[in-house]
Amino acid sequence: MKKITTPTLLINTKQCRRNIRSMVHKAQNARILLRPHFKTHQSRIIGQWFRDEGIHSITVSSVKMAQYFAQDGWKNISVAFPVNLLEAHEINELAAEINLNVLIAGVQTAPLLDKKVSNKLGVWIKIDTGYGRSGISSEKTREIEQVIAQIQESEHLRFEGFLSHTGNTYHASSTQEITTLFSEARKKLSDLKKNYIRDFPHIKVSLGDTPSASLVNDFSGIDELRPGNFVFYDFMQYKLGSCSLNEIAVALACPVVAIHPERAQIIVYGGAVHLSKEYLVDENGEKNFGQLLEFTSDGWRALENGNRVISVSQEHGIIQIDEKYINKIKIGDLVGIIPVHSCLTANLMKSYLSLDGEVIDHLNGG
Amino acid sequence: MKKITTPTLLINTKQCRRNIRSMVHKAQNARILLRPHFKTHQSRIIGQWFRDEGIHSITVSSVKMAQYFAQDGWKNISVAFPVNLLEAHEINELAAEINLNVLIAGVQTAPLLDKKVSNKLGVWIKIDTGYGRSGISSEKTREIEQVIAQIQESEHLRFEGFLSHTGNTYHASSTQEITTLFSEARKKLSDLKKNYIRDFPHIKVSLGDTPSASLVNDFSGIDELRPGNFVFYDFMQYKLGSCSLNEIAVALACPVVAIHPERAQIIVYGGAVHLSKEYLVDENGEKNFGQLLEFTSDGWRALENGNRVISVSQEHGIIQIDEKYINKIKIGDLVGIIPVHSCLTANLMKSYLSLDGEVIDHLNGG
Repeated sequence: MKKITTPTLLINTKQCRRNIRSMVHKAQNARILLRPHFKTHQSRIIGQWFRDEGIHSITVSSVKMAQYFAQDGWKNISVAFPVNLLEAHEINELAAEINLNVLIAGVQTAPLLDKKVSNKLGVWIKIDTGYGRSGISSEKTREIEQVIAQIQESEHLRFEGFLSHTGNTYHASSTQEITTLFSEARKKLSDLKKNYIRDFPHIKVSLGDTPSASLVNDFSGIDELRPGNFVFYDFMQYKLGSCSLNEIAVALACPVVAIHPERAQIIVYGGAVHLSKEYLVDENGEKNFGQLLEFTSDGWRALENGNRVISVSQEHGIIQIDEKYINKIKIGDLVGIIPVHSCLTANLMKSYLSLDGEVIDHLNGG
Repeated sequence: MKKITTPTLLINTKQCRRNIRSMVHKAQNARILLRPHFKTHQSRIIGQWFRDEGIHSITVSSVKMAQYFAQDGWKNISVAFPVNLLEAHEINELAAEINLNVLIAGVQTAPLLDKKVSNKLGVWIKIDTGYGRSGISSEKTREIEQVIAQIQESEHLRFEGFLSHTGNTYHASSTQEITTLFSEARKKLSDLKKNYIRDFPHIKVSLGDTPSASLVNDFSGIDELRPGNFVFYDFMQYKLGSCSLNEIAVALACPVVAIHPERAQIIVYGGAVHLSKEYLVDENGEKNFGQLLEFTSDGWRALENGNRVISVSQEHGIIQIDEKYINKIKIGDLVGIIPVHSCLTANLMKSYLSLDGEVIDHLNGG
């Protein structure tokens, strides 16, 4: 491996491509469009791996991300975030170049947006199917119809259909609960579609999130799927049951800067500005900011429960570690950590290093 | 104010300079060296404001940060992080140009470091005075003496003294507890200094952290102080009692993208990749990821308890907000949030915008 001297986000390219291929096949078998969310990787090189599998439509979470990928030749992009009217100028410019879709999440937005743009713009109505973050509740038919009417009256907006993010799957306590939540959302959106398809024959239903995209097999009633995290997965997804440990395609390599055998801990250069402050709470009520791993000839292998980052400050991580491992570790070694939330870790790390030593871009790396 | 279209970290320059001046005066009155920690702001322009107040010695938390400030003319820098042997080459190069100090946090490091460098390097022995993160416990006299002997035998290392970070003050439940923790640490370090000053007449005692630097008035026995966060302060420091609300010098301006009067919430463009996932838990057990504020003619004013970011995802923030405020807010407005932890927010935001419209650099902005 290339000489690593500071915290570095490693990517197992082969596994990442396997994750992409697997989700592409799943969508193909279900005959739905996979519109992967690129907010997890934010990388043009990784975007190319999706292109290699026949993907042409993508999801992003900011206008800046849309610009980054549009510049790389992506022609069909949905910004899956309640449209930010303050960026109407940038949105309008982008809509002149590519097929751009944005989200309308309430009754105030469409007329204001329509006035601020001069190019055609696809709009999805964001439906809240129970997550409670943003969107119009699927029961609020009057509000939904008001937005549909506003879109109809608008000069530049094109009604794409109903979109939801079943983010409540992240709080599910079982894989069964994930599939149930997804199935409920699926029904709500496809019912909405049925109600309006006569007037708008081209409208679609779009759902996303990695836990359900990974675990669910019944996608009937859905036209497109927008998972993002599956490209890497992470320890949170593993705990949710969305993936196995060896499907996780990124790990943070961290220099060991201190060893405390008396308390079975090591201190690494690798903290909140690398991993983020996202954590899981385990069965014993203990926090886990990242799972320790062991490097192998072809990548890495997660260590057993308990071997984990128990605390992070700005640049430090404290790792609790079994006696049998701590004795092998020396100051100046590199240890590896499976991130709890790979999207946030990638966003902080700003680039990737493949196991073959290739540097892979991230939007934040400039 | 300059046209803001996306989440933007605002800085109240006047308040920031007041915070700097106030800490400089406090150190001058106590006749100790202020060696401010630059990891909070990571900005050359803000560094200049410290220079304007007569500061010439600084603290950073990474070699990269040391390089950033050395390139800007800083000649006396301590990297207050257990030395990363994998960066010995960069450390050695920097030590040729400036007066560079690093930390030795255990008995294994000094001989290894000495072999890897060819230039003179100041080393502090990192003492754990109770925080439990890194360093040699102040009671472990044998280990401390072993390190001192290693430094004496080394060709390139120069013994600077004893350094500690009383990070346990961040978990204090009262300002009284903060001053007690600091006073205990102060005694431990100054006792150590007394034990070895005969053999090393130039050694010093270095302590830091914003809560104690802000609250304590008795610095006897200390030679230098290394607080960092005070340059901005934040909502966590306010809750600890380190500052008043109007001493907080940064705030995140966020576009409003959805309004939910029925649940007294607004959704803003501003989430975990802007604020970080750091939160406080209030008296009622409720999470606070940032306190809502109201803009005023000369800056801002924090709103009452309860008006806060209750949840963040990658790009979204959900803000709970009193009825009397929510009715004034429209889609496309900007609202302001006082960050819980300004170091992490600044690190994510990568630049600042002053209230006069000046863009201020951050290391991460390149």
